[in-house]
Amino acid sequence: MIFRRIAVIGLGLLGGSVGLAVAENLPGCTTTGFDADPEVRRRAAIRGLVSRVCETAAEAVAEAELVIFCVPVGAMGAAASAIAGALPKDALVSDVGSSKAAVTEALRAALPGAIVVPAHPVAGTERSGPDAGFAHLFRHRWCILTPPDDADPAAVSRLAAFWEALGANVEIMDAAHHDLVLAVTSHIPHLIAYTIVGTASDLEDVTRSEVIKYSAGGFRDFTRIAASDPVMWRDVFLTNRDAVLEMLGRFTEDLTALQRAIRRGDGAALHDLFTRTRDIRRSIVEQGQDDARPDFGRSDHED
Amino acid sequence: MIFRRIAVIGLGLLGGSVGLAVAENLPGCTTTGFDADPEVRRRAAIRGLVSRVCETAAEAVAEAELVIFCVPVGAMGAAASAIAGALPKDALVSDVGSSKAAVTEALRAALPGAIVVPAHPVAGTERSGPDAGFAHLFRHRWCILTPPDDADPAAVSRLAAFWEALGANVEIMDAAHHDLVLAVTSHIPHLIAYTIVGTASDLEDVTRSEVIKYSAGGFRDFTRIAASDPVMWRDVFLTNRDAVLEMLGRFTEDLTALQRAIRRGDGAALHDLFTRTRDIRRSIVEQGQDDARPDFGRSDHED
Repeated sequence: MIFRRIAVIGLGLLGGSVGLAVAENLPGCTTTGFDADPEVRRRAAIRGLVSRVCETAAEAVAEAELVIFCVPVGAMGAAASAIAGALPKDALVSDVGSSKAAVTEALRAALPGAIVVPAHPVAGTERSGPDAGFAHLFRHRWCILTPPDDADPAAVSRLAAFWEALGANVEIMDAAHHDLVLAVTSHIPHLIAYTIVGTASDLEDVTRSEVIKYSAGGFRDFTRIAASDPVMWRDVFLTNRDAVLEMLGRFTEDLTALQRAIRRGDGAALHDLFTRTRDIRRSIVEQGQDDARPDFGRSDHED
Repeated sequence: MIFRRIAVIGLGLLGGSVGLAVAENLPGCTTTGFDADPEVRRRAAIRGLVSRVCETAAEAVAEAELVIFCVPVGAMGAAASAIAGALPKDALVSDVGSSKAAVTEALRAALPGAIVVPAHPVAGTERSGPDAGFAHLFRHRWCILTPPDDADPAAVSRLAAFWEALGANVEIMDAAHHDLVLAVTSHIPHLIAYTIVGTASDLEDVTRSEVIKYSAGGFRDFTRIAASDPVMWRDVFLTNRDAVLEMLGRFTEDLTALQRAIRRGDGAALHDLFTRTRDIRRSIVEQGQDDARPDFGRSDHED
């Protein structure tokens, strides 16, 4: 048994999925859970996201061997402070946040002396809240652990075994490097999607109804990403600011070059880029990180 | 019977899907097809994309009541010139191109006196070629007709009935307005997706392998779009240049504002935008232009 008692703080998409995944994959392990929102606690109890929903975070962690914070990254510090007095001495503290350097700092500052091994399961959907989670969310997805330099190797191994039990592939990485990688593979794509959806909804010469009707041409994929949880993403951009701005600078340089190619009618430059980008897609499908079916079954050609 | 004999010029994703959709929805209608690439003609014959694959475009259109050009928009003029001598006088000429003002001009210049009613079914996948098409591609998707001012209303109605028979909803629009609307809902999303995928594959501090592994965080949706046919998209940007540059200008203004909000740590501005963008998503799902299932069944939580 990797852990016998796990506390999940925050019962939205991620926290709920952790609870359900533990129930499915680690029989005999009991989970306690807490969410600051009473309505979320109520839904969590109804859906059985954890073995026991607690009325306070302190109660939830009181006997935990592993505590996982599943709150927006900007709320990690406060959530950790709230359990500081109740945390068992040998408990392992982790999280699921999308930016890691800032979270590591916040957790360690709030819980001096605690065993902290931050983690980021790279998985999610555009849905959020206690009704959004499902047990298989982490299956075949990568979970990145970012242990501080002084982390106990045994604690890191134990947390890796936990995520593997939930179906994830585990990778270990420096927090700063994680933040740079995820700025590219996740944060900038979200920022761009939010922007274009915002741009499209503010036009005067194209109505919102037209944008919605003709979204099948590509736009709708951006709206899915841009429907993600606003608080979670606000916090990601505020806590991973430097890496996001760095990558955004490179993106806008490339976009400016493409804009110039269009203005000049440079078809060769366009064709060259549009050909190169196909390779990455192929690799992603080959490595099982996406589905190659046309339209992912979104069109109804299979009915 | 709307049309008894239909010629499809170009047998890739769109042309192949038109042929298959006609076979399924218009029994008794025969289709002829041509593609400039002999290998595509061979595959088209094997898959039965049309009733008869012809060795020349002239042969394909010789007895057609409707000719649909399904070639990249930059190739429309040449493809139309190739059939100019063989086109029956009363045949209706149309296409499926993604930019409409330029295509209208090219078709009318190549086929003076012909009945030309351009069309754009807003449907597609990232796959291309003769093996990519399927009969249900157009079902519940919008098809925009952009008849010139002097178009015969009877010809427009007939073409509308044709697309409705294939399962599409039909809308009629001015070509210039179409080009502006599609710049937002399709061309700019593709341009952005191609750019970010290109940016990500050229980084020195983040490896390509890392980009692929952690693509589930949002990036993979962009790679799907950026795997679309390079020639088709090169031509779209070259032929819809003004509308694309106009919309790109608005997008980069908005992106710059968001960049400033991140730099200044203005969480309220970020949260405000991230909340507004959720509404559009809801409308798209409500109107049946996308699927609300988490991850569209891409994750394997349904297995």
